[in-house]
Amino acid sequence: MTTHTVLFRPYDKLVKVKDGESLIRSAMESGVHINASCGGEGVCGKCRIIIESGEVEGGISEKLEKEDIKKGIRLACLAKVKEDIVVRITTESTVDASVLNLLAVSRNTARIQKINFEAMKEKGLFIPPVEKRYIEMPSPTAHDNLSDITRLVSYLKLNYNESKLEVDLSVIRKIPDVLRENDFKITVTLIRPVHEGNKTKIVNVQPGNTVGSNYAIAIDVGTTTVYGQIIDLITGEVLAQHGDFNGQISYGEDVISRIVFAEKGGLDKLSEVVLTTINKIIKKIIKRASISSEDISTVTIAGNTTMTQLMLRINPRYIRLAPYVPASTLYPPFKTSEIGLDIEEHVRALIYPEVSSYVGGDIVAGVMGSGMYLSDEFTLFMDIGTNAEIVIGNKDWLACSACSAGPAFEGGGLKFGMRAAKGAVEDFSVDPFTLEPMIMTIGNVRPKGICGSGLIAIVATMFEMGIIDSSGKYDRNLDTLRIIKKDGVYEYVIAWANETQIEKDLSLSEIDIENLIRAKGAMYSGCITLLEEVGLSVTDLDLIIISGGFGSYVDLEKAMTIGLLPEVDPKKVQFIGNGSLMGARMSSLTNRLRKDVVEVTKMMTNFELSETASYMDNYIAAIFLPHTDISQFPKLKQRMASRKKLVMGRRSI
Amino acid sequence: MTTHTVLFRPYDKLVKVKDGESLIRSAMESGVHINASCGGEGVCGKCRIIIESGEVEGGISEKLEKEDIKKGIRLACLAKVKEDIVVRITTESTVDASVLNLLAVSRNTARIQKINFEAMKEKGLFIPPVEKRYIEMPSPTAHDNLSDITRLVSYLKLNYNESKLEVDLSVIRKIPDVLRENDFKITVTLIRPVHEGNKTKIVNVQPGNTVGSNYAIAIDVGTTTVYGQIIDLITGEVLAQHGDFNGQISYGEDVISRIVFAEKGGLDKLSEVVLTTINKIIKKIIKRASISSEDISTVTIAGNTTMTQLMLRINPRYIRLAPYVPASTLYPPFKTSEIGLDIEEHVRALIYPEVSSYVGGDIVAGVMGSGMYLSDEFTLFMDIGTNAEIVIGNKDWLACSACSAGPAFEGGGLKFGMRAAKGAVEDFSVDPFTLEPMIMTIGNVRPKGICGSGLIAIVATMFEMGIIDSSGKYDRNLDTLRIIKKDGVYEYVIAWANETQIEKDLSLSEIDIENLIRAKGAMYSGCITLLEEVGLSVTDLDLIIISGGFGSYVDLEKAMTIGLLPEVDPKKVQFIGNGSLMGARMSSLTNRLRKDVVEVTKMMTNFELSETASYMDNYIAAIFLPHTDISQFPKLKQRMASRKKLVMGRRSI
Repeated sequence: MTTHTVLFRPYDKLVKVKDGESLIRSAMESGVHINASCGGEGVCGKCRIIIESGEVEGGISEKLEKEDIKKGIRLACLAKVKEDIVVRITTESTVDASVLNLLAVSRNTARIQKINFEAMKEKGLFIPPVEKRYIEMPSPTAHDNLSDITRLVSYLKLNYNESKLEVDLSVIRKIPDVLRENDFKITVTLIRPVHEGNKTKIVNVQPGNTVGSNYAIAIDVGTTTVYGQIIDLITGEVLAQHGDFNGQISYGEDVISRIVFAEKGGLDKLSEVVLTTINKIIKKIIKRASISSEDISTVTIAGNTTMTQLMLRINPRYIRLAPYVPASTLYPPFKTSEIGLDIEEHVRALIYPEVSSYVGGDIVAGVMGSGMYLSDEFTLFMDIGTNAEIVIGNKDWLACSACSAGPAFEGGGLKFGMRAAKGAVEDFSVDPFTLEPMIMTIGNVRPKGICGSGLIAIVATMFEMGIIDSSGKYDRNLDTLRIIKKDGVYEYVIAWANETQIEKDLSLSEIDIENLIRAKGAMYSGCITLLEEVGLSVTDLDLIIISGGFGSYVDLEKAMTIGLLPEVDPKKVQFIGNGSLMGARMSSLTNRLRKDVVEVTKMMTNFELSETASYMDNYIAAIFLPHTDISQFPKLKQRMASRKKLVMGRRSI
Repeated sequence: MTTHTVLFRPYDKLVKVKDGESLIRSAMESGVHINASCGGEGVCGKCRIIIESGEVEGGISEKLEKEDIKKGIRLACLAKVKEDIVVRITTESTVDASVLNLLAVSRNTARIQKINFEAMKEKGLFIPPVEKRYIEMPSPTAHDNLSDITRLVSYLKLNYNESKLEVDLSVIRKIPDVLRENDFKITVTLIRPVHEGNKTKIVNVQPGNTVGSNYAIAIDVGTTTVYGQIIDLITGEVLAQHGDFNGQISYGEDVISRIVFAEKGGLDKLSEVVLTTINKIIKKIIKRASISSEDISTVTIAGNTTMTQLMLRINPRYIRLAPYVPASTLYPPFKTSEIGLDIEEHVRALIYPEVSSYVGGDIVAGVMGSGMYLSDEFTLFMDIGTNAEIVIGNKDWLACSACSAGPAFEGGGLKFGMRAAKGAVEDFSVDPFTLEPMIMTIGNVRPKGICGSGLIAIVATMFEMGIIDSSGKYDRNLDTLRIIKKDGVYEYVIAWANETQIEKDLSLSEIDIENLIRAKGAMYSGCITLLEEVGLSVTDLDLIIISGGFGSYVDLEKAMTIGLLPEVDPKKVQFIGNGSLMGARMSSLTNRLRKDVVEVTKMMTNFELSETASYMDNYIAAIFLPHTDISQFPKLKQRMASRKKLVMGRRSI
């Protein structure tokens, strides 16, 4: 079988692929991420790359200008590898926030990028949390028969000026044989204290020199999905990653139903199943990265407060009962065995601290990983999902809040809602006159349902077209077979039964739209209320960071059209993907974050929206498209005005 | 059933006993120790007590002078309780070593005595390692919904000036329900750092006020026997104790055979069985003390280096191979679950540190518990057993050494040797003319064998009588049927077959005597060599401390007669019983010992006798009764001279 070599820049990732393989698949398999939302059929045009050396077969479509093609730009999904090539992944324009960019790996969590340790060092951001040292010690004699541990500790004190060393039982158990396996030449793993003055822990000894192999694991425990990554602590590279559904899903879709299940005696079960999910992921990424589990030195885990308590087998009952008190917001480092992780027993697990019952470790990780806590800029951080959280602030202050948006953004609670998986309608347009739809599904297959981003696209498009009014109702006067009344509810048929995989009409009802409006209303009014509480307005914001899997797929303009996001210059918006995972990863790379995080959680003032008088008013005002006060969306207002003619025109047909 | 109340002074131990019960049995059952070696038949006269109030039935024997009887002195073994009484246990005269006596509970380990915390405090010896605090916190509200742990930590910081607090996972798991069980009124258990500046650990929370119930467990893991005690951390009292054979015995009698078994893949097994023994003892003493296992706050374990490594599942191979390197000499505090102890998971286990492969935690515990490391006096500390250890020094310096004496002191390696159990000959005298024996057995039953103290009594007595010469040979010219030659070896028949339980002649052969001489020669020459190495002689010693179960039974004068101990004023000799258990117990009462012990182990200079040139010469000189140089035993020399006539007289018969 002929194979070719592809070098992906700027990550300097070299992979072998078989002849004729599509470039996007090569990238995906080797862990290099390229944005591409149409499933590789060349229709979205997002997967632009530059061929710097060599040539590919195909890769050209109408999505590319002639100028682009001349520059070597191709669509990765249409390009086939027929020889050795060098490919550059184009980097998106990002806001000017140098500190942020040092910490935040990229706009997309899956993006693998080298960490600039030197730059981090210069800014005091790089303080390695774990170090390996190779040492060659003298063998014992009758006149120098110190214990093995004393020999090691004395050697480190004398030669490396180490002091305050502490030793794990696992090291005491290993050291006699490890020392004698390779003539007292060993590699020792040192975990540095987060706070100066505390002890350095000797957590591992290995025969010979393994200094070059030092890895961390980062885990994001989401209510729905769990993600894991292996990070090379020397290069900062992500070597492998994997995500899977949280095994707890069978016991309840959201945190409240899980808490209720735990209260009914299911706590041990919920802990067990999420640990099973995590351990499976760990096993998979270790295998994918082709590393020895011996060389893993640290693991960082971030999750919301409920996920964290369930994983650690801590009764979550009081999270859901007023006044919503979590068991703890800070956790000491744990031995992996103590909390049930299948990782070598020398590894310490760091659990991301929390702010409150509904602003958890996942959000704190996002704040840390995105670097917003180090920035001068007024930043709005949003994690959009069932449990939506908002953080506003900068390096001087931080305010946060949680608002329960409901499951609409994840395709939940809709008549034909589904997760963002194959067959989900994810983009939509409509002929302004015939009102016939054009849909895009994930995987370019026949539609099965509507996912969160699809829902927003549909509602935004139809609202701009005047098919839906600002209260979310279909125009009853339109001449189309697509809008029908079924069981007393108006709905728009997106695909007829014979066009779908489900063999019935796939439609979006006014109830579905109402659900979305409530969800986006909760998010938006949360943002506005929190801004008001801290005396700011939308125009004061320098940056909006969108975190969460949902954020990676949503169309920014459409999100503003429906009033999910305040209307700002799109350049001010940054998508960071899985912020929780990013924070977990960054914390495994530097003690600076581990140290700062305690202060950051203290700094994050929690506002209980239900306790904030203006929230309900803001919410009532926000449950319209885009809002009762259209002046908050000036560009949309402008567009709406110019579309008005169209609608009038359609009416007159 | 009629019962009476007995108050034992000076321990203020109050017990209920049934009518007619013997006083000695009442004492034994209630854990109050009274010396009594004849098994309760009134023959040894050692169990003198004073009746301070009330009267007993019996208790008078020819062992008591009229004067004694007038003072209320009785023999506890013969006295029956018929009414409420107050009994005072007479305290033995002890050497003037006030610091020692503060730490050392008494001359006998089994003795239960109240700790004088006030006096300890005055001398800076009392630094509680674990404290319980009862607190009443305000309940959370919507505007004060800190996490449960933050609430606790803040409260302790604010109201008790606590800083640097660290919380166990088990506490995070318990706190939500514990707080709400009793309206935020709880008792919190704080483990103080041994070294200032380190963190205080919050290891337990309990609903309500449990400040009065705070207990520790002390464990001595011996090669042969394991002992455990429950200590009341508030009164310092030992509430219960129990000993049992180390389950490892089935896998080898001594440390070397256990190490060999471990090397052959038996390490896990040996760890498992000793933990089973320990866990059984813990269960038993918790039950006996009638306490809740919830209220146990700390456990301290002392054992020799091999026992410690086997218990902790650390390969002991290099302990037996030159240059005899242990894995570690210091151990961090462990969570009980980490090392397999069946104690609530909040409890921390402290393992006594070691000096070397053959001077282990048991010896260090003896040095700490006896307080010799705080004393101005030149002290010789001896732990007599199969593995005999010697420590010489005072508060300024300490030298130590191990010598392998062999199993003779424990009744091992003898033709009719046995442990100190029922039926073992433990004392002996002989008619100077008929050479007929008078024997005392443990339990006053027909003899089954000879235990260590019996062996010493027999050999010492016969040597003084001239029946055995200084090389350990029987006088061939004596006119007695007791000395016979069997299989070419001379032996003395202690009991004829029909007088025994074993239905054969119970005898002591010259080979047995040789074994004893080698064992005591090893001990004695070890002491002399170590004294020489530090530039001292026997006459410089202010105090000799004898540790070990063996020491509790042996007759001091007879031990000097055979040359096991150097000849010193008996007032200078102190028996402390199980020094290892004593050290473990004392370390559970004060952090002063936990802190000092690290420095003490560093201070204890280890001399490898096999590497010390003079040791072999000293040994050769010591393998005679009592020694080649009789001038080292002036009193014995004098006695021998006066006995010479007797021997001559016997010859002339």
